[in-house]
Amino acid sequence: MPDTQPFAFELDPYMRHLGFAAEVPAPGSARVWGVLRPEHLNSTGSAHGGFLFSLADSAFALASNSHGALAVALSAHIEYFKTTRAGERIEAHAREVSLTRRTGVYQVEIRADAGLIAQFTGTVYRRPDQPTPLQAGNSAA
Amino acid sequence: MPDTQPFAFELDPYMRHLGFAAEVPAPGSARVWGVLRPEHLNSTGSAHGGFLFSLADSAFALASNSHGALAVALSAHIEYFKTTRAGERIEAHAREVSLTRRTGVYQVEIRADAGLIAQFTGTVYRRPDQPTPLQAGNSAA
Amino acid sequence: MPDTQPFAFELDPYMRHLGFAAEVPAPGSARVWGVLRPEHLNSTGSAHGGFLFSLADSAFALASNSHGALAVALSAHIEYFKTTRAGERIEAHAREVSLTRRTGVYQVEIRADAGLIAQFTGTVYRRPDQPTPLQAGNSAA
Amino acid sequence: MPDTQPFAFELDPYMRHLGFAAEVPAPGSARVWGVLRPEHLNSTGSAHGGFLFSLADSAFALASNSHGALAVALSAHIEYFKTTRAGERIEAHAREVSLTRRTGVYQVEIRADAGLIAQFTGTVYRRPDQPTPLQAGNSAA
Repeated sequence: MPDTQPFAFELDPYMRHLGFAAEVPAPGSARVWGVLRPEHLNSTGSAHGGFLFSLADSAFALASNSHGALAVALSAHIEYFKTTRAGERIEAHAREVSLTRRTGVYQVEIRADAGLIAQFTGTVYRRPDQPTPLQAGNSAA
Repeated sequence: MPDTQPFAFELDPYMRHLGFAAEVPAPGSARVWGVLRPEHLNSTGSAHGGFLFSLADSAFALASNSHGALAVALSAHIEYFKTTRAGERIEAHAREVSLTRRTGVYQVEIRADAGLIAQFTGTVYRRPDQPTPLQAGNSAA
Repeated sequence: MPDTQPFAFELDPYMRHLGFAAEVPAPGSARVWGVLRPEHLNSTGSAHGGFLFSLADSAFALASNSHGALAVALSAHIEYFKTTRAGERIEAHAREVSLTRRTGVYQVEIRADAGLIAQFTGTVYRRPDQPTPLQAGNSAA
Repeated sequence: MPDTQPFAFELDPYMRHLGFAAEVPAPGSARVWGVLRPEHLNSTGSAHGGFLFSLADSAFALASNSHGALAVALSAHIEYFKTTRAGERIEAHAREVSLTRRTGVYQVEIRADAGLIAQFTGTVYRRPDQPTPLQAGNSAA
């Protein structure tokens, strides 16, 4: 599955549910963004950790599947730096740090008005012979 | 802030948005559960990684704030083991692994029909003199 | 490569350099221990984080390779809880949390005089058709 | 404890035991390097994961303590990308990703002949009123 075509992807149901938009500028890379709504907040009035993780995880999923083969997440971690407020635009930018036939590692920066507010790292196991369901036309959903 | 009273908490807006329910059986512990809806799925038809993390992160927040003082998440990681299907009840159970005046570490098991489907570990920084907003009556939301 | 025989392993050069001893009580499990020497300390007089990680990582390597197939570490993390002093016996106990044909996740508890002093989690990619070099007789060293 | 002076540090006993050398080019940053000796290898003939972690952890310790206040490691994780061979010079470069009065997060790149072979992320809790023992003249060792 060569990277000769732009990756025409479909947002999955959860990304749509949280109001995310996305682009895949090049294989191995992705940007996902959304506006922080009141229902995305924790009890201190800042973005819930699960919301920030979900944004970053979506960028990780798009970047790791953008070569056309199925990439299955094995693990991920996140570090939180700064708080946010309702109404801010939050953006996650994933880049590929390592890629082998069977594995990949992606680093995601999460930015808002205050700059870098969190960072995420994710590891996938790749199935080189199985097409990704994120590609337009492949979805099982 | 001694642990002499049951911890009467309020779900935060994001937990309510994802349809979670919760209990705090004892200080340092929490259970959060929800039903996996179609809007919580990824493109393979399994729970989105962000949904599973959000469930575990909510249990982590309740457990770490259940001593009455504000606990701020510094970092977390998750490992994924098994897939799920729409309609399953997913439950996260957080327990305290370490607690000092200023820090705490929590381990969360995430279970569904197939048993243990993921595990989560989170670290907090504690502010012993600041009350948690998760306690009923304290919320800023 | 069935688990019908006890796993007869060899310590690798780094485990020997740090003075570790080990046992594999059952497939998927391992214990590694050592005495904390002055050269293993950090500048506060406690075990260096790298020493504790090395002990846990060795238990992780033995447990994940104990099925006979090569297991390659993809990622690991560690949380630190308590300090130690020179002369203490430190022990790491690894257990298998998840095992599939291609992947495995292991949790390691690190104990000393004060009880649980750190915990470690590691993820491997498995090569089912390649024998582990940790098995006695296979070593490349 | 202002950053007006160069940080004159001392290697701790474990760094010396593994043959590391180090520099702190600026507050919040550190480089640590060493030559991969036969006693640093695992059973495949590559650097042991514990050795690579120890190198990165040492850079993390120097960078996080270089502001003069004591920084205590709470957690760390590492992702492995490529193998190495005895005789290679391995270098870890730590940079500060986040710094608050009480916390800090550091990212460490680990490089050898093949380029980026692993990456590390570490989180500290800071004690602003307690001087670091890594500063020359403060050591408890």
